[in-house]
Amino acid sequence: MSEILLKNVYIDDRRTDILVRGNIIAKIADGIEAPEAESIDCSRMAAIPGFINMHTHAAMTMTRSVKEDMKLQPWLQHIWKVEAQYDKDILYWGNKLACLEMIKTGTTCFNDMYWGGDLAALAVDEMGIRAVHSYCMLDNGDMEKAEKERRALIRDFEKSRSFSSRNMFAVSVHAPYTVCEDNMRFAAMFAEQNDLLIHIHLSETEQEITDSQEKWGCSPVEYCERLGLLSERLIAAHSLWLSPHDIELMGAYGVTAVHNVNSNLKIASGYKFPMEELIAAGANVTLGTDGCGSSNNLDMMEALKTAAILQKAWRRNPEAIPLDTLLKIGSENAAKALRLNAGKIEEGRLADIVLIDMNNVFFTPNYNFKANLVYSANSSCVDTVICDGRIVMRGRKVEGEQEILDNAAACGERLMSRIQF
Amino acid sequence: MSEILLKNVYIDDRRTDILVRGNIIAKIADGIEAPEAESIDCSRMAAIPGFINMHTHAAMTMTRSVKEDMKLQPWLQHIWKVEAQYDKDILYWGNKLACLEMIKTGTTCFNDMYWGGDLAALAVDEMGIRAVHSYCMLDNGDMEKAEKERRALIRDFEKSRSFSSRNMFAVSVHAPYTVCEDNMRFAAMFAEQNDLLIHIHLSETEQEITDSQEKWGCSPVEYCERLGLLSERLIAAHSLWLSPHDIELMGAYGVTAVHNVNSNLKIASGYKFPMEELIAAGANVTLGTDGCGSSNNLDMMEALKTAAILQKAWRRNPEAIPLDTLLKIGSENAAKALRLNAGKIEEGRLADIVLIDMNNVFFTPNYNFKANLVYSANSSCVDTVICDGRIVMRGRKVEGEQEILDNAAACGERLMSRIQF
Repeated sequence: MSEILLKNVYIDDRRTDILVRGNIIAKIADGIEAPEAESIDCSRMAAIPGFINMHTHAAMTMTRSVKEDMKLQPWLQHIWKVEAQYDKDILYWGNKLACLEMIKTGTTCFNDMYWGGDLAALAVDEMGIRAVHSYCMLDNGDMEKAEKERRALIRDFEKSRSFSSRNMFAVSVHAPYTVCEDNMRFAAMFAEQNDLLIHIHLSETEQEITDSQEKWGCSPVEYCERLGLLSERLIAAHSLWLSPHDIELMGAYGVTAVHNVNSNLKIASGYKFPMEELIAAGANVTLGTDGCGSSNNLDMMEALKTAAILQKAWRRNPEAIPLDTLLKIGSENAAKALRLNAGKIEEGRLADIVLIDMNNVFFTPNYNFKANLVYSANSSCVDTVICDGRIVMRGRKVEGEQEILDNAAACGERLMSRIQF
Repeated sequence: MSEILLKNVYIDDRRTDILVRGNIIAKIADGIEAPEAESIDCSRMAAIPGFINMHTHAAMTMTRSVKEDMKLQPWLQHIWKVEAQYDKDILYWGNKLACLEMIKTGTTCFNDMYWGGDLAALAVDEMGIRAVHSYCMLDNGDMEKAEKERRALIRDFEKSRSFSSRNMFAVSVHAPYTVCEDNMRFAAMFAEQNDLLIHIHLSETEQEITDSQEKWGCSPVEYCERLGLLSERLIAAHSLWLSPHDIELMGAYGVTAVHNVNSNLKIASGYKFPMEELIAAGANVTLGTDGCGSSNNLDMMEALKTAAILQKAWRRNPEAIPLDTLLKIGSENAAKALRLNAGKIEEGRLADIVLIDMNNVFFTPNYNFKANLVYSANSSCVDTVICDGRIVMRGRKVEGEQEILDNAAACGERLMSRIQF
């Protein structure tokens, strides 16, 4: 079984050694001897768990910066026009590019909401990280479409059985306002029967709340409760516009909320994500980047900082969301949501480890590693990424990087040539 | 005269050549021949003007992350305890570290508010960038102290006459609430007589406004007008809590406002910086990072993104602050404020140029360079920095970098050993 030895690595305010055996963190102790292991001198590095991006649309890297500074509706029209021109090649290289960006920025797992999970799974497999794929049901109340969507979900779930162990599958429901009641119920039932997670866009905009009250006489969260969707299986992206009762419900059912701070800010959906309230209620709070269409990168380190300082600002409390809470949101809470034995540097956990280079301005002086990591550094300090016990980036170099950049750029040009703006 | 030739560089949506001769952008044209010039292949790079950080306390890099997630008053007590233990070595290496960080993140000039400008000027000189230094007057209403502060300002201004051309000097007034009326008037007069800029903290917190109304029966901006401080010389850091009348005044006098977005968010001073209103009123809007004590880095690229998306969010308008407006805030407006013939890539301007590496995930695909620069990329894409016609960073390598990191880290340890928390 292959072994990696991280020598003299900084972790929890001390230096020690970490031995990775197979895909597991086998041992954390001082002075480990492992002559067979690939040894990495970590005297200038710290080990942290890989970040887990809990809400993205990976293939949308191909829509990065395609239209900017626009209101939601005209912007969406553009994005849909672009996505309608995707082909398999674009999907594949878009996913490769997304994986590359995630590796470079210290993310080892992502929770994706898209279609075509098999090409994404292939990209993820080749790149060496983890992902949860889905088939995103979306019917806009058309009963014929709804029937097709159910069949497509079942088909993609069956296909997912042949995924490698680093690729998982979840049921995905676009949103309460784009999926009919029957399919909302179906999603809950199908997830329960097959022990799957459910990924949904929930309570993202104020308009959504108004519309929900008008249509169903209750909030989107209450509507989800009525249809049997609230449970520990549910991963609710955005969860931005929540009433106290919504928060109570999400806590009581142990729902996972995903804060997508940069996307929410940039498309002006809102900024008062009830992080403290959700945590206090017992909900599981995690973080995502959303797709590169709405926000423009997949950088979890950037998202962590923005999330933290924004909470402090609108709460008018610089003590809000201390660093330990924040860092859990970036990995440990997410691993729990995905039922993944990762998210912490601990013996027996999956070896999903990021080595942070501290020999640079952002960590000088280094009175407080966690503060420097979140508030000072950026993802350029990610030096080495280990996922499932395998090195996927070393010294910021990823195998095949230039090929991915070149192919993705070429796909982008082809995509644009097909579109009349 | 030394020459640098930037071959095939991306600028304003096209590719061309830029010839730097001496410290000036001598020519921008296709196919420039300059056999004597140091030629840089820029086929994967874009040229942008160096960022100008309009409000910082450079030596406070040595307080980076020293105390986190605290309310303002207890936090300030800590910071002052730390700063009281500074010696010349700590000041010098703190400034070297600040310059290094600014170079690495694409900043070629900064407007500093601190003391000991001669050591800072030495550091800036050695590092090859530009700065405006100051002597920061602060008397807390003590008349004896006020007299000393005036003498110290005059002394430091005299010393500044021997600064090299890349180091400038400004009058600095800590804030209306920490500097007596006499010295506020003195600062205005002294600046006028010697044709200097004035750097001040203004309207940073809501408390400051309440206190000002109580003490002077007017806002801090109105108080400044009364004492003769409002003019095109004035650089007002923060300018966060402004009434419509304040904004009108700042516009009418052509005051420069400096938005310090990350500092304002992190210490929870506020987040509704009236960017659009100030611009509409005719004020000059610029951007700063503040010192590493309150925010934790000097990264202008990070600040630009946060500033933009935050404006969109609280205004509930994704069209707010388009990219061209934003990028001017990062350099052109600042150059104007500092009366520096820089801030634009244009023939005849000072050669303060940053080369952005586009061969990476953040610029792939590259449908919109400016959007990728601000919303997708981070400062790790800064490849090469030219200031005053001299290359200060090439391929992300700065001369003497390791020595600075090591010395600053050692200074940090010494500093901490002197302090009882």
